[in-house]
Amino acid sequence: MREVYLDNSATTKVCDTAVKEAVTTMVQNYGNPSSGHALGIRAENVLDESRKVVSKVIGCEPKELFFTSGGTESNNIAIFGSAEHRRKLGNKIVTTAIEHSSVLRVMEQLENRGFEVVYLKPDLFGTISKNQLMNAIDNNTILVSVMCVNNEVGSIMPIGDIKNIIRAKNSKAIFHTDAVQAFGKLPINVKRMGIDLLSMSAHKIHGSKGVGALYISKNVKINPITFGGGQEHDMSPGTEPMPAIAGFKGALLELSKSKNVYAKIADLNNYCRERLANNENVRINSPKNGLPYILNISVKRIKSETMTNFLSSNNIYVSNGSACSKGNRSHVLSAMGLPADMIDSSIRVSFSRFNTREDVDYFIKYLNEGIDKLIKF
Amino acid sequence: MREVYLDNSATTKVCDTAVKEAVTTMVQNYGNPSSGHALGIRAENVLDESRKVVSKVIGCEPKELFFTSGGTESNNIAIFGSAEHRRKLGNKIVTTAIEHSSVLRVMEQLENRGFEVVYLKPDLFGTISKNQLMNAIDNNTILVSVMCVNNEVGSIMPIGDIKNIIRAKNSKAIFHTDAVQAFGKLPINVKRMGIDLLSMSAHKIHGSKGVGALYISKNVKINPITFGGGQEHDMSPGTEPMPAIAGFKGALLELSKSKNVYAKIADLNNYCRERLANNENVRINSPKNGLPYILNISVKRIKSETMTNFLSSNNIYVSNGSACSKGNRSHVLSAMGLPADMIDSSIRVSFSRFNTREDVDYFIKYLNEGIDKLIKF
Repeated sequence: MREVYLDNSATTKVCDTAVKEAVTTMVQNYGNPSSGHALGIRAENVLDESRKVVSKVIGCEPKELFFTSGGTESNNIAIFGSAEHRRKLGNKIVTTAIEHSSVLRVMEQLENRGFEVVYLKPDLFGTISKNQLMNAIDNNTILVSVMCVNNEVGSIMPIGDIKNIIRAKNSKAIFHTDAVQAFGKLPINVKRMGIDLLSMSAHKIHGSKGVGALYISKNVKINPITFGGGQEHDMSPGTEPMPAIAGFKGALLELSKSKNVYAKIADLNNYCRERLANNENVRINSPKNGLPYILNISVKRIKSETMTNFLSSNNIYVSNGSACSKGNRSHVLSAMGLPADMIDSSIRVSFSRFNTREDVDYFIKYLNEGIDKLIKF
Repeated sequence: MREVYLDNSATTKVCDTAVKEAVTTMVQNYGNPSSGHALGIRAENVLDESRKVVSKVIGCEPKELFFTSGGTESNNIAIFGSAEHRRKLGNKIVTTAIEHSSVLRVMEQLENRGFEVVYLKPDLFGTISKNQLMNAIDNNTILVSVMCVNNEVGSIMPIGDIKNIIRAKNSKAIFHTDAVQAFGKLPINVKRMGIDLLSMSAHKIHGSKGVGALYISKNVKINPITFGGGQEHDMSPGTEPMPAIAGFKGALLELSKSKNVYAKIADLNNYCRERLANNENVRINSPKNGLPYILNISVKRIKSETMTNFLSSNNIYVSNGSACSKGNRSHVLSAMGLPADMIDSSIRVSFSRFNTREDVDYFIKYLNEGIDKLIKF
């Protein structure tokens, strides 16, 4: 039976090249990169090559790129590490109300430790304005942390402007962005965009779960949050997750050989929007100018879970809100000011380059069937 | 050309069952365990099964077992998490001078935060005595952290006695053990042995790098050290490293089907000792009653690195000291009181069930060739 996977912002199928690289690392180059012998050096070479491939995607030097266990560890290191290191310079942190939980929950902790955290509220399109940033950032601000792309609705944040605003406000703040949903999808150049810290994850781009990376500008110092054998220049110590790291490289190599991915995804998104356009029971929550990989909709009077379960029983996999915080009402849609019934009936469709228009047709067919069967009048 | 891998305490080749499980998770059960749809539930089932398999090995309940990114994260969570949680109960921590760097470096941090840390010094056999523990543990002690097996020499610590000593001293200390080198090798039952916290790693037992586990007794509460989407009951948040977790299960299943592993390793160790017995240039640093997986020796007047490089050039892979902290003089052999020249000429041979007596012969042959060629008179 056909399976249609449209939950690619939660996680993706690992692509062939990534699987192949991971397997080679498990059975052939299985040495510990910290070992001095030939097998260790072979592993170290895999690590170095992977670092080069990942760093190239964001335009940083390989030595500015640190592998982690995933986006959550990257965000934790970036935020805890810079806040604690810069404590003497100021007390204020600026972020948004619609960050991922691995940012928001770290911010809560920092509030407990005496930091002042400002959570910018997004507009109805899920984004924040330069003006809001201008007003919030001051010379007591030590860190600005704003995601590139929101994971629930796909809204794109004004990342390219933030460094200029920091400069304009004479602030000593450094700039972190959680790029987990943007990495490998939107063009990012950390140098041109003035980004000091950037979090990535492999499993959103057909790499394996269990690895991410953190870019730390060579001009910036942050404290480590865990301690051990000194791997990743002390930033993420512990034996490196080599199969996943090699797979990360593989995923990016395969992606770089895939043609017109963005256009293909944009076409899927547009096609899906078209097919939904005349459906009076559906409203689209994602902004038109958002990242096309994500399409968030609400289905009138059908609870998210009811619809996603119905679709799942027909082998169509979409998300009821963020897969990262099961069971809670979306803080993103709430912050965007959506009414409760629309939040509670929202589902997120997220595409990958392996999806087709036929997948969209299949989804629409069962969505409509679901609406007919499930709607409560 | 024959490759002889004798660095299994640094890391191991991933076994067939583990590779197979990891691949299935990458291409088939690739859902996010936090997703509510069928593919997410399939992933959650893999997670649950893996948790059952791992917890069974140490005799705990599945709900007491938390997956982490590896032994280092497990040690960091266990030690930071319990020290901070128990701060109000006392100030003193008892450990040994020969713990892994992911324990020792965390202890340094705790000293900076005002904790008193007592580092018990091992004897010449690399172990500590009940008496030392009796003298060190008092009613200001909140945590005792003693490894099961030392990673450099294989000495076995009196783990089974520690809880009784804590009780005898009327201490409220909880007991953590870094079992990375013992897990899957020595029989461990956390309930019978009174262990409150236990750290494990998959890649030392033919699982993949990038996953470990921490046992936390249901009677014990500790603070998390990173924050995010709530995975692993908040103890290690972030999307779970599923391929490595499934591989962890696979490695243990294959191990459980392998017959007489311990006897086989003991035979390899004994055979190697016999073959070295009459070699006047070699001295054995590992205790006779240590874990047979590890054999640490010193080769008169040949620097560790010189010998390991020579062996490596003949495709024999052994370690010059711990692979985890490249380039430093072994703190373990130093603490055991070995003279500097023996420390600087030490190498660690470590076995797995995939090694044979022929591997030992091959190693001895080139060790002797190395001695002939490299020794400085």
